[in-house]
Amino acid sequence: MLPTIAWQDDAVVMVDQRKLPTREVYVTCQTPQDVARAIKTMVVRGAPVIGVAAAMGLALGLQRSPAAGTKQLTTEFLRHCDLLAATRPTAVNLFWAIDRMKTVFSRRVLAGAGVDDLRRLMRDEAQAIHDEDVASCREIGRLGGALVPQDAGILTHCNAGSLATAGYGTALGVIRGAVEQGRTVRVFADETRPVLQGARLTAWELVRDGIDTTVIADNMAAVLMRDKRINFVVVGADRIAANGDVANKIGTYTVAVLARQHGVPFYVAAPRSTIDLATSDGSGIPIEERSRREVTHVGATQIAPDQAKVYNPAFDVTPHALVSGIITERGVCRAPYSTSLAALFDRVPEQAVAR
Amino acid sequence: MLPTIAWQDDAVVMVDQRKLPTREVYVTCQTPQDVARAIKTMVVRGAPVIGVAAAMGLALGLQRSPAAGTKQLTTEFLRHCDLLAATRPTAVNLFWAIDRMKTVFSRRVLAGAGVDDLRRLMRDEAQAIHDEDVASCREIGRLGGALVPQDAGILTHCNAGSLATAGYGTALGVIRGAVEQGRTVRVFADETRPVLQGARLTAWELVRDGIDTTVIADNMAAVLMRDKRINFVVVGADRIAANGDVANKIGTYTVAVLARQHGVPFYVAAPRSTIDLATSDGSGIPIEERSRREVTHVGATQIAPDQAKVYNPAFDVTPHALVSGIITERGVCRAPYSTSLAALFDRVPEQAVAR
Repeated sequence: MLPTIAWQDDAVVMVDQRKLPTREVYVTCQTPQDVARAIKTMVVRGAPVIGVAAAMGLALGLQRSPAAGTKQLTTEFLRHCDLLAATRPTAVNLFWAIDRMKTVFSRRVLAGAGVDDLRRLMRDEAQAIHDEDVASCREIGRLGGALVPQDAGILTHCNAGSLATAGYGTALGVIRGAVEQGRTVRVFADETRPVLQGARLTAWELVRDGIDTTVIADNMAAVLMRDKRINFVVVGADRIAANGDVANKIGTYTVAVLARQHGVPFYVAAPRSTIDLATSDGSGIPIEERSRREVTHVGATQIAPDQAKVYNPAFDVTPHALVSGIITERGVCRAPYSTSLAALFDRVPEQAVAR
Repeated sequence: MLPTIAWQDDAVVMVDQRKLPTREVYVTCQTPQDVARAIKTMVVRGAPVIGVAAAMGLALGLQRSPAAGTKQLTTEFLRHCDLLAATRPTAVNLFWAIDRMKTVFSRRVLAGAGVDDLRRLMRDEAQAIHDEDVASCREIGRLGGALVPQDAGILTHCNAGSLATAGYGTALGVIRGAVEQGRTVRVFADETRPVLQGARLTAWELVRDGIDTTVIADNMAAVLMRDKRINFVVVGADRIAANGDVANKIGTYTVAVLARQHGVPFYVAAPRSTIDLATSDGSGIPIEERSRREVTHVGATQIAPDQAKVYNPAFDVTPHALVSGIITERGVCRAPYSTSLAALFDRVPEQAVAR
């Protein structure tokens, strides 16, 4: 399995996802600032691993701090929380991980932990977030793999793989789960313009695993569905609202419309840390707009004239009505999502979630 | 207006569409072989202008021929017809232009024309095909422009502009017609992967004309439709079957599905030379598959791993049921297309075509 992000002595090392698939380069982060920059510039991307990276960045900050007392340490810690929270707006896992680190930190402070205890305990907490994410992906893979038909043609969009998580992946976890359960699959990877996570990352991960993988431009999925060469869609998510609306990489909504039009099931795979019950529906999810250069250039090649405007939303929202199911580590949620998603957090009776 | 293709002394000159928008380079074709290569490698692309280029290539062949008698000239001419017909399979305008040149050639031979007469007459015929294409685009623009609402947000896919025709354009002709008729328009240009004709060519043409143009990745159109920022779609065509099914650049079918889903009218603009009454429906249209490199590389940048497979159909077929109207130089055809398209060729009563 690919080490997307890991401790190396007292630093955090991550593979530079901007350089894949042609170069495997590792970036070493020494400070929370380094981690913030890595998230912002997409050295590391993918909702679950952004949360993991933020937690590790906070642990790094505590570790490097010269603070002698908990008061100064707390001030620094909260500043680093703000810094990391300001990196990217859409993936809720980022805020979830920061909140979890904050909660544990204040609980430990209240319990009388000293500066050195806090350093150690918070690094353990960050590692726990990392390890739980891998375990969640494995469980998502096991549960979701069972939904994949034998001899499946599977479409996925963007990268919701090992590289988007602490390991194994969400959408790619489902594909890996299906393969582990003995099914034959052929995967079509939408290249996913403009940043090309599908062509660069998903295809790279899957061919390393020996899984039959075909790269297509985003606009080719429709004919494959019409020709019945795709009969299952699975994607990840950056934030899932309480009603089941799903924010995910730009283009996901198009895939969902096409899947519905062609009678192909459309599944979303995500850990519970992606579910934001505080946001009632998709209209409340902030959508990041990124730079025009992502669209106008690929590498050094300019593909659009300087005078043209560019619109570059990084995500879109797929309405819950187009979602066949949401695969989490606690079970596969089905409509009505307002009930089944809440049940994941034990807010309504457990039986609303099919296991 | 942009000179897409023109005679320059005894050669045919065309702008190299692979180099735009960053470089304006012209390619000079001295022989039919040069023209065939230019069509195949997409120096020149776009269904109507491919027909014009083929006709000019045939005229070039006659001009350069050392043949002393009509028999030898005819043999060479037919060989050049085969050469040019083998360049690309989908755009029917190519075969239409070659057939027209063949018909005129044989009529002239039968009428006793000599070698020098044939050289002159066939060059005139090629120029007539060129000039008629410009006139058709102007009329398409006039008729189609009237369909565009005031203050329109228009989506177009690929390039059906001056560069795809002898001049003015079909889909972009409709946009130009709307502007000439005093309407305010904002155009969204799908970049159109993998060859990026939208970002490179459509945006370049439209910003030269001072038309408000925003480049988007192909997977961004859906959110613009949902947000009601697009309320009109117009695209070109490479071949229209007798029942109104439309082969056009890959991704067009996706746009048509999205337009229907969001209640946005979806128009096709094409001259009659694009209509193939001999093909009863879209399933009979040959779809060209192009090289994997178009998908795996942009300029020198590799974006997909070597081990991944690639699927790269250059066109798709939009079923006639998703088409709001087909704008031709003889009028706007509406469903049932089997009647309204045939009427364009006076095969059924004229009133089937709305003018």
